[in-house]
Amino acid sequence: MAAKGRLFGLGVGPGDPELLTLKAVRLLKSARVVAYPAAKGRKGNALSIVEGFLGDDQLRLALIYPVTTEVLPPPLSYETVIRDFYDDAAGQVATHLEAGRDVAVVCEGDPFFYGSFMYLHDRLAGRYHTEVVPGVPSIMAGAAVLGAPLVYRNQTLSVISGVLPEDELEHRLAGCEAAAIMKLGTNFAKVRRVLERLGLMDRALYVERATMAAQRILPLAQVAPEEVPYFSLILIPGPPWQEA
Amino acid sequence: MAAKGRLFGLGVGPGDPELLTLKAVRLLKSARVVAYPAAKGRKGNALSIVEGFLGDDQLRLALIYPVTTEVLPPPLSYETVIRDFYDDAAGQVATHLEAGRDVAVVCEGDPFFYGSFMYLHDRLAGRYHTEVVPGVPSIMAGAAVLGAPLVYRNQTLSVISGVLPEDELEHRLAGCEAAAIMKLGTNFAKVRRVLERLGLMDRALYVERATMAAQRILPLAQVAPEEVPYFSLILIPGPPWQEA
Repeated sequence: MAAKGRLFGLGVGPGDPELLTLKAVRLLKSARVVAYPAAKGRKGNALSIVEGFLGDDQLRLALIYPVTTEVLPPPLSYETVIRDFYDDAAGQVATHLEAGRDVAVVCEGDPFFYGSFMYLHDRLAGRYHTEVVPGVPSIMAGAAVLGAPLVYRNQTLSVISGVLPEDELEHRLAGCEAAAIMKLGTNFAKVRRVLERLGLMDRALYVERATMAAQRILPLAQVAPEEVPYFSLILIPGPPWQEA
Repeated sequence: MAAKGRLFGLGVGPGDPELLTLKAVRLLKSARVVAYPAAKGRKGNALSIVEGFLGDDQLRLALIYPVTTEVLPPPLSYETVIRDFYDDAAGQVATHLEAGRDVAVVCEGDPFFYGSFMYLHDRLAGRYHTEVVPGVPSIMAGAAVLGAPLVYRNQTLSVISGVLPEDELEHRLAGCEAAAIMKLGTNFAKVRRVLERLGLMDRALYVERATMAAQRILPLAQVAPEEVPYFSLILIPGPPWQEA
């Protein structure tokens, strides 16, 4: 019986293909199958980042996720729709692994930091040889392009999802020293209201698509909420220690 | 008059030289001067990670930091000793920049995430062309080698320094969903006591020198406190969402 394939979860970084690690590039090029999440009819950001490294002989496996909101009419539920998607995606990946083909799943940023790879890992890592290659997360890329040192000395960094309800956002941000707020998109106006109430507007920095060609940096007060993409960030750097 | 040199803060990742990004390797190889922090008489981890990429013609500039504790006899203070070190280090780097030589400062992990580069940046970025290349932080590397997805969906991640006083550690860890505790070393016993009191021992994972040759993973309860290196981590992954 042929050996089973190996599963690789490759962090491909925030957007600039030059921010892949040497290890991710090596494993990406050597994998028989390259799997990537994408909306139906779209290429997906992860594939866009890596496609310059791929050869014509490598199989490309699109994992087409359902476009959905978190509230659906019964008997549907967000949880069920998403679970079915990951069950199906894991099944497609497993078919290749069973046939002895290595599969590299490409993940924007880092695979274990809010990555969709985590749900494949939970379903497959017990059955197949699995290796995860860490990547540069978007918050580090955001700090770099903003020129903003993020966490000094013994400060605490809170990484917070903009999807949270307004009162929970306020509670979590009220006590923070340094913070990164992810998943903005349609949550932007709510997040900005909270920052205004907490008096944090002077410290908060905004960046869209950090390190990508379409990167945009502008003052938070000037951002138009209806134009905020999912790939945007607000960073609240910790107060400088020993500024020169 | 010759142009001034450029300052690069290069994240070189957690330890495995293959976890440098393509961009960090390119800029590292092209810099006339490579600066690295090190204790007196030691090579330093950052230089160890990158030295395989360096040519004989590149100048190496050791920034020798004082080995000190946070409590010193008056009139000395930790703040003064450290400030003097960074003032001196910035001066040494500036001498090369003034002479038109590019300087790459290598930083373990990410430059703006608890990195000593932050203090050079605060002193020099206003005067010289400065670019920061984000790197893979140790917490992502730790999660990868532990096979532990770190933050699901809308969970909050708290990154906490083990140097904090015991009551503050307890306060910050009590409300957390997912957490990473850095800077263990001599703080390990204190941190473990807090985790025991909070009933978090079952969820907490320990790793030393993730992705380095001397990497070690063992159950938290079995760790000998007197052997814990500075480069160790405790991760408390968020509760899995939609585990298969």
